[in-house]
Amino acid sequence: MGVTSHDVARLAGVSQPTVSRALRDDARVTAETKRRVREAAEALGYVRSDLGRSLSTQATHRVALVAELGNTLYHQLIAPIHDELLDRGYRMSLFAERGEDGALAERLLDRSVDGAILMTTRLGSSLPSELARRRLPLVFLNRVGGIVEAPSVTADNVGGSRSAAQLLLELGHTRIGAILGPSDTSTARDREAGYRLALDDAGIALPSKWLYRLDYDHESGRLGLGAMVESGDLPTAILCANDDIAIGVLNKAIELGVSVPDDIAVIGFDDVDMAAWPAFELTTVRTTLLEMSRSAAALLVDQLESRRAVDDKVFPTELVRRRTHARA
Amino acid sequence: MGVTSHDVARLAGVSQPTVSRALRDDARVTAETKRRVREAAEALGYVRSDLGRSLSTQATHRVALVAELGNTLYHQLIAPIHDELLDRGYRMSLFAERGEDGALAERLLDRSVDGAILMTTRLGSSLPSELARRRLPLVFLNRVGGIVEAPSVTADNVGGSRSAAQLLLELGHTRIGAILGPSDTSTARDREAGYRLALDDAGIALPSKWLYRLDYDHESGRLGLGAMVESGDLPTAILCANDDIAIGVLNKAIELGVSVPDDIAVIGFDDVDMAAWPAFELTTVRTTLLEMSRSAAALLVDQLESRRAVDDKVFPTELVRRRTHARA
Repeated sequence: MGVTSHDVARLAGVSQPTVSRALRDDARVTAETKRRVREAAEALGYVRSDLGRSLSTQATHRVALVAELGNTLYHQLIAPIHDELLDRGYRMSLFAERGEDGALAERLLDRSVDGAILMTTRLGSSLPSELARRRLPLVFLNRVGGIVEAPSVTADNVGGSRSAAQLLLELGHTRIGAILGPSDTSTARDREAGYRLALDDAGIALPSKWLYRLDYDHESGRLGLGAMVESGDLPTAILCANDDIAIGVLNKAIELGVSVPDDIAVIGFDDVDMAAWPAFELTTVRTTLLEMSRSAAALLVDQLESRRAVDDKVFPTELVRRRTHARA
Repeated sequence: MGVTSHDVARLAGVSQPTVSRALRDDARVTAETKRRVREAAEALGYVRSDLGRSLSTQATHRVALVAELGNTLYHQLIAPIHDELLDRGYRMSLFAERGEDGALAERLLDRSVDGAILMTTRLGSSLPSELARRRLPLVFLNRVGGIVEAPSVTADNVGGSRSAAQLLLELGHTRIGAILGPSDTSTARDREAGYRLALDDAGIALPSKWLYRLDYDHESGRLGLGAMVESGDLPTAILCANDDIAIGVLNKAIELGVSVPDDIAVIGFDDVDMAAWPAFELTTVRTTLLEMSRSAAALLVDQLESRRAVDDKVFPTELVRRRTHARA
């Protein structure tokens, strides 16, 4: 029905492939022809159809962003990924990840997307290997998957968490606890490794009574501090594997009348916007998640368009000293 | 594009909305008018837009969610909309809105989606009318557009903000300020109307020196309180048109040593998760945004599948009294 690219071609006096090329701003078409085609398209009210495009090229110019949507950190990354993809002529489809790998894999593999950015992969997930086996190009962002070889964009999680633990050691802390994210995530594994590197060097233990492996969320911080206070045996500092956890600890501390940093020092990870708010002034480890996100989108498009392998990228971190650390 | 409902309206001597209502057998239209409209439609060979669309295009089972991605409130709504759509056999494509209506309309109209949920529409935006003109089914969520007739899912913004202002009046406040969202949003307009209803009843003014029309974000709260303190003439209470603004005020108050609620009472709108945190304990107006979001997704699917018009939904609000209000 309606106007087709053939109608536009007739009116502009060019071939139909030239219409397609002109409307996607292909360099092989002169500026003058582009202008003529655009005017003809406008005159006829022609809108380019994605369906037609995907039939003729097999590419959908659509990329999946796969994430656990419950995690607020990732919400901030949707916009930069969306924008970077759009700048490069791709659209983003958002897929929620929540355990049922099989169904999700089928939805990703029905040729409605050219590739996928995996943002919240669990180490035990079969999704990356299933996608890799069926040759869907993919990039890991922030977390990496288990054994699958795919390009990844990550922060220097080991280095960042090591610097957080070192700060506590310099301040004389020896009774140190930690609230970590899920143990089947590469970030929790790597951040724990960083904490332990620093503590082991100093001969300080991370006793299991003060080690909580929960989720990367506000509630986990509340739970963790609540349990430590309940036990009557409080450490003097808590390393939190992300800022959501740390801010949960700060809120629970207010509720319980525990003073930060006098009774307990708290250090986060990520440096989300909230960390700098006067209500929190959280000492934390800054990652450049916005840059990382754009980089992951760019990396996937490079992979799709050059059809060659691309390199992993590891972004440096930086310790940000605010108000929640103090001498032991 | 052929005959439109406007042509039918002219011939039948009625308004365009009446044509829509008559053709979907709405009870508000008399039998006589319905007959006249049907005859006019038949005479002109007019096909109702939803039918016309289903006949002429292939269903993609994909729905666009259009939002300003910078607004953190909306991030929380992406997951419930995604899930509701998925439950009903639809996928969600996320489109970022940021002013360039034309380009966005083209992307939405290239037949890659069956319909759209508009989440952050500005009153002056041409997008809704452009989509309606080109017969893309749409639903407004939270904010409504200007003159376009499309089903909407909103909170009772007038009633909710009226109750917020009434609380301040009951507490004896007469020096009241407000920090509103952008004046080209229906929510800012309706919340201001609710504040004024209560204040006018009590004979209290909302003086322009204490009235700020900014954005729905944390920074606007900081700016608003900062400017009021700077002026040396502080009200005793501030009505904030959303919680992001209110929490910005609370953070700025900490920074400036202004005591809440002793020096100044602060009331928000939305009851986001953060509002209940011990660091804030914000008194606010609760909306049921999660339910509203699922409802909007359901409404759009109903519209797509039943091919008939659906009704607007207005969700009630509730005043939540926490720690940031006190007697004047």
